[in-house]
Amino acid sequence: MSLDNLKKAIGGTKERRKKPATLTKQEVMAQSLELVENSFICMLGTNGGAGFPNIKALLNLKHEGLKKIWFSTNTSSKRVQQLKKDNKACVYYVNEKRFKGLMLLGTVEILQDNESKKMLWAEGAEVYYPQGIEDPDYSVLNFTAKQGNYYQGLQNVDFEIE
Amino acid sequence: MSLDNLKKAIGGTKERRKKPATLTKQEVMAQSLELVENSFICMLGTNGGAGFPNIKALLNLKHEGLKKIWFSTNTSSKRVQQLKKDNKACVYYVNEKRFKGLMLLGTVEILQDNESKKMLWAEGAEVYYPQGIEDPDYSVLNFTAKQGNYYQGLQNVDFEIE
Repeated sequence: MSLDNLKKAIGGTKERRKKPATLTKQEVMAQSLELVENSFICMLGTNGGAGFPNIKALLNLKHEGLKKIWFSTNTSSKRVQQLKKDNKACVYYVNEKRFKGLMLLGTVEILQDNESKKMLWAEGAEVYYPQGIEDPDYSVLNFTAKQGNYYQGLQNVDFEIE
Repeated sequence: MSLDNLKKAIGGTKERRKKPATLTKQEVMAQSLELVENSFICMLGTNGGAGFPNIKALLNLKHEGLKKIWFSTNTSSKRVQQLKKDNKACVYYVNEKRFKGLMLLGTVEILQDNESKKMLWAEGAEVYYPQGIEDPDYSVLNFTAKQGNYYQGLQNVDFEIE
């Protein structure tokens, strides 16, 4: 952790500047989707207490394009309590090696129906939810995106999600 | 990107449960600091427009314990505009392979004095700030943490930062 990180970043940025400077809307959408599909985790941003934004990494489990994303979480978690009060959120994906990032802005619905909970279940998930699929401490978060921002190196593009 | 991510996480979580269940305050502080020191990037959470939290990855350049963190950024960036309106922020570090994460809550001061800007300068940074250290589009963000939350697997600890 030091200014060496800046030197690495500078090297990468110079390299990428050799490529064409403007991403088309199609490239932005394709690269955004690729980033989502290749991510193991993503970051959920919520409005926490006392006016502070909060961030938590969640497993990247299921999505439908860039519009819908589903997460598995504990009903008792801080995130769920915050989302009950204010469902405005953002989801952020990052590739730190290639300086690519995607931020999606939208709202979260907290689901506890069995169909949604089955959809995100995997064998052994009792390690998080000891009572299984019907564990009341197991919830599904359904994020719906309205806007996106994608960047790659020094290029940065805002877009609407319909 | 699929439920395979959940299966990987389950395997790791089961493995870690074999270790002692409670982290001491000393371990929390030491592991938090280790995470900061080994991170190439971290995520800055800000209060964006229309009540939405925003997230952006920034290079992890310089810190003083867990209390102070400095970032290099463009004065014209959305982040700086948001922080001018509301300086409440969070900084998040994550190790996705080991399921460790640290969230720091605090406030950000925007610095433009030459001493701070020199402190975070590296050769070649003109790729971001063409006019060099004195480029008005180059700012330093100084984050001061007040509270922290560290987790490792299923363990999750809140702490104050003095």
